[in-house]
Amino acid sequence: MRRWNGWGDEQFSLSLPDSGQDFLSDRIGPGRQLGNATLEAVCDQVPASRLPEHPAIHTDAETRVRHARGQSLEDWLAMRSGDFGPFPDGVAFPESGDMVRELLAFAKDEDLHIIPYGGGTSVAGHINPVDHGRPVLTIDMGRMNRLLDLDEDSQIATFGAGTPGPLVESQLKPLGYTLGHFPQSFELSTLGGWVASRSSGQQSLRYGRIEQLFAGGTVESPEGTLTLPTIPASSAGPDVREMVLGSEGHLGLITEVKVRVTPIAEREQFHVLFFPDWEQARTAARRLVQQKIQLSMLRLSNATETETQLALAGHPKQIGLLETFLGWRGVADGKCMMTLGLTGSKAQYSAALKQLKALTKSYGGVYTGTYLGNKWAEKRFTMPYLREALWDEGYAVDTLETATDWNNVDHLMHTIESTLRDGLADEGKRVHVFTHLSHVYSQGCSIYTTYVFANGDDHDTTRRQWQRLKQSASEQIVHNGGTISHQHGVGKDHAPYLPVEKGALGMALIRGLGRTLDPDQRLSPDTLYAWNDKESS
Amino acid sequence: MRRWNGWGDEQFSLSLPDSGQDFLSDRIGPGRQLGNATLEAVCDQVPASRLPEHPAIHTDAETRVRHARGQSLEDWLAMRSGDFGPFPDGVAFPESGDMVRELLAFAKDEDLHIIPYGGGTSVAGHINPVDHGRPVLTIDMGRMNRLLDLDEDSQIATFGAGTPGPLVESQLKPLGYTLGHFPQSFELSTLGGWVASRSSGQQSLRYGRIEQLFAGGTVESPEGTLTLPTIPASSAGPDVREMVLGSEGHLGLITEVKVRVTPIAEREQFHVLFFPDWEQARTAARRLVQQKIQLSMLRLSNATETETQLALAGHPKQIGLLETFLGWRGVADGKCMMTLGLTGSKAQYSAALKQLKALTKSYGGVYTGTYLGNKWAEKRFTMPYLREALWDEGYAVDTLETATDWNNVDHLMHTIESTLRDGLADEGKRVHVFTHLSHVYSQGCSIYTTYVFANGDDHDTTRRQWQRLKQSASEQIVHNGGTISHQHGVGKDHAPYLPVEKGALGMALIRGLGRTLDPDQRLSPDTLYAWNDKESS
Repeated sequence: MRRWNGWGDEQFSLSLPDSGQDFLSDRIGPGRQLGNATLEAVCDQVPASRLPEHPAIHTDAETRVRHARGQSLEDWLAMRSGDFGPFPDGVAFPESGDMVRELLAFAKDEDLHIIPYGGGTSVAGHINPVDHGRPVLTIDMGRMNRLLDLDEDSQIATFGAGTPGPLVESQLKPLGYTLGHFPQSFELSTLGGWVASRSSGQQSLRYGRIEQLFAGGTVESPEGTLTLPTIPASSAGPDVREMVLGSEGHLGLITEVKVRVTPIAEREQFHVLFFPDWEQARTAARRLVQQKIQLSMLRLSNATETETQLALAGHPKQIGLLETFLGWRGVADGKCMMTLGLTGSKAQYSAALKQLKALTKSYGGVYTGTYLGNKWAEKRFTMPYLREALWDEGYAVDTLETATDWNNVDHLMHTIESTLRDGLADEGKRVHVFTHLSHVYSQGCSIYTTYVFANGDDHDTTRRQWQRLKQSASEQIVHNGGTISHQHGVGKDHAPYLPVEKGALGMALIRGLGRTLDPDQRLSPDTLYAWNDKESS
Repeated sequence: MRRWNGWGDEQFSLSLPDSGQDFLSDRIGPGRQLGNATLEAVCDQVPASRLPEHPAIHTDAETRVRHARGQSLEDWLAMRSGDFGPFPDGVAFPESGDMVRELLAFAKDEDLHIIPYGGGTSVAGHINPVDHGRPVLTIDMGRMNRLLDLDEDSQIATFGAGTPGPLVESQLKPLGYTLGHFPQSFELSTLGGWVASRSSGQQSLRYGRIEQLFAGGTVESPEGTLTLPTIPASSAGPDVREMVLGSEGHLGLITEVKVRVTPIAEREQFHVLFFPDWEQARTAARRLVQQKIQLSMLRLSNATETETQLALAGHPKQIGLLETFLGWRGVADGKCMMTLGLTGSKAQYSAALKQLKALTKSYGGVYTGTYLGNKWAEKRFTMPYLREALWDEGYAVDTLETATDWNNVDHLMHTIESTLRDGLADEGKRVHVFTHLSHVYSQGCSIYTTYVFANGDDHDTTRRQWQRLKQSASEQIVHNGGTISHQHGVGKDHAPYLPVEKGALGMALIRGLGRTLDPDQRLSPDTLYAWNDKESS
């Protein structure tokens, strides 16, 4: 069963190895364990629903609790403290486009707010209800989770928009295909959510971002049905698909998604190299993508992330051997780990491996084979469980991500890291900060920063400390040439920073889209742009 | 000097070889030569300008004639007959964003219509003035044609939006870079025009369409300046870049364009193969792109295009030898020619050549080396001159293009071809029709159809016959799963068909963008959507 107050399946958990605990304690001091509210206690707080009865809408407390919060650190602290904030007044689980249209009509008649809900994995507050007076109906798309059609000539698969990652892949695999979209939230997040929030998967170098995978589909809006035909490319005016991508619920509920799929590749392995320093490693990463070497993934950890990962991995003996081996080759303190995915036909795989070895060698890269890389791939969806392991030791962990052009990567990474590292110094607190680059493009890359700090005296103090860190880092990002999000979306948490990036006219264009299909402003309140700003343009 | 009544440079012309004339005469009967109006006679018709004087605006007759028509067949017939229709009231040639802003303010004060003008190469009526009462000011961006900045780390070049193809490449080449965007109109069309109309270049397989190349820039709108920052990828809401792409002037004048450039490749050659029949050739094309073999271009002529190209090439002796050679290998009547571009590092080039030879062999492909392909590449920008060569022999030529998914390619191609071939049968006229596929994607490809017919008794009869063909084929395209344009844009000629493709809600979203930045509906009247429709949504 899915955890009601955290990530993933209740049956699964990670624990921190001793070496990891020592490492953190050394860096940022001991953790502070805080309590966890019970589901029963939270359910007891849920107020009566303001919704009139409807046969398809569930208004029981537990269903409403389970749809009230996403997966940001602020959500986590709300769930663990029991101080939830607003709950949706009810949750519907439609099984067809017809039912979605009926729910939209009901929402209009009863003057409701609507929150579209995919996997509930937002880390930016997308699915959290806000109280603006209207009752809130959350529409959970999770029952529309089937592969409906596969066109093998055109390599297009049609899915219900509520299909989560594992059900996408398990329905395609027996037919010999993959979508290849593997965000960190893969276990729970859905196709419709990926489209609505412009998601990117770990192997975007081969398969593309969701923008490249999303070929068309259906959106049920308050003004009617928007159908996006599949066309491989077009110059027939602005692309309406691109208006749906990143719309975060403002245009309607995505009910059907057509995606570009790929036959499962003959060969796939993940390789690891170490570089002697950041400068050489970052240049090698840039050159690999700019040379168009056929990789499916590139992830480059900076020196602190490399050190942290090796410490948290456990297995100190094997790590010691690895470090001795690297030392012989001049790769020691300050080393940076690069993980590369290679996916393709046998011929493409071999050609790319040869090309990448030649290129990385000239930047001091030491190739260590596929053992560490394949281990990473095996465990790549378990990372979100780490928050619970750290919480149990008394630490809070969060991530921030952006993207910028190559000529700005170092500046922006250092600015973000130092802002976080020093962000609680006036409260006498240290913050452990580390970063990797991933999702590399010829123009630039994403910057993904993780930060860990010991919990405060109570949940609310911890939340306030998190808010200070998040706010100061977010301001640095948008004022230093970064996007407020490369893959997590805007939601409510990033909305205050969006106008810096888009400008007043850009925001007016974006708001105009919502006004056209949702003239009553019924959908996704305060997501993407704040309610109070809506009238101002 | 640029031709005032047709394509390209006055110093350059093509002529049809005897074998080509015989071929056409055999297929569609003899041509009929029609007269050509003189520039002097056309200038004499130009009415007085309705514009108040402005130091930056030219109102002389010749400048207005030279900005009144694009390059569609209807434009050609207008220019050759002298029956031009509306002229712009004046033409401005701004040299900076400041001047553009000043012109926008002037247009507001004087209640003008504005037509943004790049290279004037539209084949869909984008830049043709229409008379809705307001005086028309055409803004020719041609003087903003400089490379302003090159960021070599991020591989981003900043250009004035009026930079035409040759000046893009000639300013990048000494620095070791290429944009790699080569539409058929390359000699005259401009960066801003490519962005505004979502253009695609012949080597889009390597470099991408303009959507992939356009990284950001500046648009001067009636509501102010819209700045698009360069960010490699983002999930921060809908992408405003994508609203500018294909906006066809409705959001403002694009003044500065930042594009993703690529170091000039070590190696590039164009290879030609012949296939025994269409079915095998089309399957090979699909498989080549779906297998992600690193090609820079793929163009596949159907049997009639192959035959026509070989007939029009002249050199019957060499063609005879080629056909003998192909015959020995079982490739004879019904053969289809495929041209493949290979571009990359030496290692990538060799790997791709090996992979493509292996794949095409299993579909009966016969590899004939690089001679024909490199000839094609050398002459690829001279094709538009062929209209004049055919006109001189009494024939009218036009092209139609669309794109569709692979599972619909044959159906749509045959529908378009038969519609055109039989389109004038009731007037006792034959139409010669042939097609190639290009711009291949894993999902589908573009379909590019050329049609030739003998001129009618006079210019106006010819125009009416063209209109019948264009209209019936366009209807077939949008009602059979094609886009109304893969690379030419919408303009005025395709506007009536756009709502079939986009749907009522899609059109409402697109019109909403224009309403946001151009509330007085001053820009690009009747382009993208018809004036009369504007108020209706």
